[in-house]
Amino acid sequence: MKIAFIGTGNMGAPMALNLIHAGHEVTVYNRTREKLEPLAQAGAHVANSPADAVRAAEVVITMLANDYAVREATLVSEAIDALARGAIHMSASTISVALSKELAAAHASRGQGYVAAPVLGRPDSAAAQKLWIMAAGPPDQINRCRSLMDAIGRAVTVVGEEAWRANLAKITMNFMLASMLETMGEAFALVRKAGIGLDQFFQIMNGLYNSPVYANYGKIVADRRFEPAGFRLTLGLKDIGLALDAGQDFAVPMPLASLIRDQYLTAIAHGRADADWSAITEVPAQNAGL
Amino acid sequence: MKIAFIGTGNMGAPMALNLIHAGHEVTVYNRTREKLEPLAQAGAHVANSPADAVRAAEVVITMLANDYAVREATLVSEAIDALARGAIHMSASTISVALSKELAAAHASRGQGYVAAPVLGRPDSAAAQKLWIMAAGPPDQINRCRSLMDAIGRAVTVVGEEAWRANLAKITMNFMLASMLETMGEAFALVRKAGIGLDQFFQIMNGLYNSPVYANYGKIVADRRFEPAGFRLTLGLKDIGLALDAGQDFAVPMPLASLIRDQYLTAIAHGRADADWSAITEVPAQNAGL
Amino acid sequence: MKIAFIGTGNMGAPMALNLIHAGHEVTVYNRTREKLEPLAQAGAHVANSPADAVRAAEVVITMLANDYAVREATLVSEAIDALARGAIHMSASTISVALSKELAAAHASRGQGYVAAPVLGRPDSAAAQKLWIMAAGPPDQINRCRSLMDAIGRAVTVVGEEAWRANLAKITMNFMLASMLETMGEAFALVRKAGIGLDQFFQIMNGLYNSPVYANYGKIVADRRFEPAGFRLTLGLKDIGLALDAGQDFAVPMPLASLIRDQYLTAIAHGRADADWSAITEVPAQNAGL
Amino acid sequence: MKIAFIGTGNMGAPMALNLIHAGHEVTVYNRTREKLEPLAQAGAHVANSPADAVRAAEVVITMLANDYAVREATLVSEAIDALARGAIHMSASTISVALSKELAAAHASRGQGYVAAPVLGRPDSAAAQKLWIMAAGPPDQINRCRSLMDAIGRAVTVVGEEAWRANLAKITMNFMLASMLETMGEAFALVRKAGIGLDQFFQIMNGLYNSPVYANYGKIVADRRFEPAGFRLTLGLKDIGLALDAGQDFAVPMPLASLIRDQYLTAIAHGRADADWSAITEVPAQNAGL
Repeated sequence: MKIAFIGTGNMGAPMALNLIHAGHEVTVYNRTREKLEPLAQAGAHVANSPADAVRAAEVVITMLANDYAVREATLVSEAIDALARGAIHMSASTISVALSKELAAAHASRGQGYVAAPVLGRPDSAAAQKLWIMAAGPPDQINRCRSLMDAIGRAVTVVGEEAWRANLAKITMNFMLASMLETMGEAFALVRKAGIGLDQFFQIMNGLYNSPVYANYGKIVADRRFEPAGFRLTLGLKDIGLALDAGQDFAVPMPLASLIRDQYLTAIAHGRADADWSAITEVPAQNAGL
Repeated sequence: MKIAFIGTGNMGAPMALNLIHAGHEVTVYNRTREKLEPLAQAGAHVANSPADAVRAAEVVITMLANDYAVREATLVSEAIDALARGAIHMSASTISVALSKELAAAHASRGQGYVAAPVLGRPDSAAAQKLWIMAAGPPDQINRCRSLMDAIGRAVTVVGEEAWRANLAKITMNFMLASMLETMGEAFALVRKAGIGLDQFFQIMNGLYNSPVYANYGKIVADRRFEPAGFRLTLGLKDIGLALDAGQDFAVPMPLASLIRDQYLTAIAHGRADADWSAITEVPAQNAGL
Repeated sequence: MKIAFIGTGNMGAPMALNLIHAGHEVTVYNRTREKLEPLAQAGAHVANSPADAVRAAEVVITMLANDYAVREATLVSEAIDALARGAIHMSASTISVALSKELAAAHASRGQGYVAAPVLGRPDSAAAQKLWIMAAGPPDQINRCRSLMDAIGRAVTVVGEEAWRANLAKITMNFMLASMLETMGEAFALVRKAGIGLDQFFQIMNGLYNSPVYANYGKIVADRRFEPAGFRLTLGLKDIGLALDAGQDFAVPMPLASLIRDQYLTAIAHGRADADWSAITEVPAQNAGL
Repeated sequence: MKIAFIGTGNMGAPMALNLIHAGHEVTVYNRTREKLEPLAQAGAHVANSPADAVRAAEVVITMLANDYAVREATLVSEAIDALARGAIHMSASTISVALSKELAAAHASRGQGYVAAPVLGRPDSAAAQKLWIMAAGPPDQINRCRSLMDAIGRAVTVVGEEAWRANLAKITMNFMLASMLETMGEAFALVRKAGIGLDQFFQIMNGLYNSPVYANYGKIVADRRFEPAGFRLTLGLKDIGLALDAGQDFAVPMPLASLIRDQYLTAIAHGRADADWSAITEVPAQNAGL
């Protein structure tokens, strides 16, 4: 298939590469040009603007940092008008419910398709083709994107026929991960201050959960290896804000999400904006005087 | 070995049974007598008081609900004076750091040993000999208890030479589990109110964490199957209180533990004291008007 | 002076009336027309649109519910283009820092003045000319509005030369009031459940604080007289959201503001959206099973 | 009347002095002897032990820091057995509901009276005879203590016939004060970081609340004058713990009390244990990077 891929950062680049390897014809665009070179060498066409990228595409995939970037690359850039009738926008970014609804309407009014397909996983999972994809949208459109999803991830869960539901599922999963990190932060602060070895505590934690997610993040946190960021702390703050916004829309109070937001702000006020989002675990330690 | 086992409730009974099956000579005591019958049929001696139970024991194991019960069965009951010099108290209950320190001193002053060996797992894990044991105490005393631990659990992590550290590790792990439950509660409330199927959300959650703990608790929570309690909600409140007490002793603020405590109180105020501690997940749902 | 007054609701109507009584020539506009009649009878001109209202004004005062309404009445409605060069917009609404900055720039680019002058007080204070006004903006513009402020309130505190600072001060004061309400809610829940008479508790509280604010709100809360709303709960939620947004902009975590937001969402999920914002005090009572 | 006064610290000393000035015969005891000298010079008898102090007393007043000190000075010291039948213990300390119930029973079983009469106010209020007293106990016993209360305070509110209710009322009032301080802490952090002058903000705050409590504490906080402590931060932590304990007993979740507890722990972890309890306001500032 002819694919346009917009947003080739930490996550987008390996995803685009996997699409190329799967035999698709991929045109890439990124605001920062140097990130495109490795993809060009792998066989991608390089476009000069979002509109250029999408003009001949059957499916355009966006993988950008936040609502602002997605809005700029689609609605503001006129790419949406350059996209052909019948083509599909498969939005893989973690964006708000509100923007997802707006995009669904904008594409529908132009005879285009719109599928939300946000992904779970960090850059190494993306490279290993192991992302978990949450998809939502009209069933026929999801089917047309299915081979692309298979090229990117290890599994797809379809959560509904309205695209925004996939975005909400993703936002909720990120809230769960951030909660796990805050939990680790408080637990490790207590354990450290009580003089228990983190190695021993880890053995117990991993013995109990037996989960690669706990094992991987636990190790990052125990080693305090927050740079370079796999997922920036400011993006973590953005995502918890999306969860809180969704909670407000549906009148669902989420006090743990509120706590996480406050901890991220403390982290940012202490210079950790560009660290990995798992650096939230430093806040309980800092508050404990460690 | 000659073992006294005090406290044969949901957890203690299968543990005592596994010790009998491993060939030890076990004398059991429980305040409620009817719980002792299946053990008597399996070959246990039945004692009429804690003091009777421990008189001939090389190791006495206690598995009781809280500080009060452990204090009653040891310090108050005179069992501690009936225990022989050189015998060991292996305390498997989840008790406070303060009581663990007090017991260590009380036993030491009588020439007795004291090992803390709290366990992770629910009744079915206890029956399946799959508990994870956190042990702390003098190394030689731990070694003497090792075969007992092996008969009860699948693994032992030694976290220090002072017994209370094992209690703190256990308290911290229970805090982590309660945090996971609160997280699920908020996530499911949002997802349900947004009209996403819990089955789909589960598939994603389990796809991500790939953890039996998430899978098991997730299913309990999704099915809202909180009775009969595997671990009573009031015990969950007790344990989060122990975490907060330990946090106060070490000057470690734990805002997530505070939140969990408040949610448990809300659950109790709404009649869920005897439900499983995973019924904390009903509080976010209730606050969201579900 | 020739005044345009836009937004004659609970608060705006008595403010406009006081300006008429002070001898100013006042043209009023309100989206809901019937609210204008009492003002017309008192001598106000009635305009058919914001643009009509402001055309001849030396000062236009806006007193609207939220950012959306202010934006609609000024930037969207073209009123801003109908306003004369040299005229001043005195914005009395509680709006966001972001919109205040946007308005300051929009007016400046048209040679118009812009002063933020949000007010503290409920409708009865407005009627009694007892509002406390926080003003910010260029000193000469504030001076030109001074007689209007004197006609509306009992005191003016100037907090800076950049208009948004007055908005931030107002947002912060509303946060303080909401915190007082949450505090009362938790205190009263405890006192009620312990069987202490609220009358006695009130006597103590008022004896200590000796503050009309505590006395007035305390009485509303003790009597549970939340209808009709002096200030709607959804506006309370809006304002705490503005505080949290400002906190995020300045990297100031405000955990108490987060708690209040969550309590408001619980109140809304239980049907209290249109009650007075002091109905937040029902949430702790409800959580306590009262 | 013949009065024994136990505990002549910051608060107790001026209270005892006022009783002497009112013409009562006062015998004083304090663990730290040097604090007794000014009282001896004012005419007090000095006792060598709590038991000595109370032997001839019609009323014994205790004004001590916490449950432990009150328990030591009464139940542990044998003073309770030295107190005459028919004499009354008027307990002015801020103690737990549990200890108050225990004392009521212990005195009743000895034919002695027990009245709880905790006081609101700081040392300067105590000196100025301006404390607000919450009293509870059997009406005839309260009547017999009435002249003493009048010598100490400006007003008495009777909250019930069971003594512990006065302790609960006091605990709840201290929770309200601590909430006000946390509120100020978050508000001032935001205002400071936004570049608004604290003087201006104060003017508004005091204009709104018009309360001496806000004015006094506001000034302490704005001047960051936390030493010497009028009321030590660790006592603030103790009192919020009493509120949380009472909340747990009555199944009343108090999330704001939980937040305050966490902030106090952060303050202690950063070396502020001996500062005034209003130093809780430094925690939001610190978290904001100020």
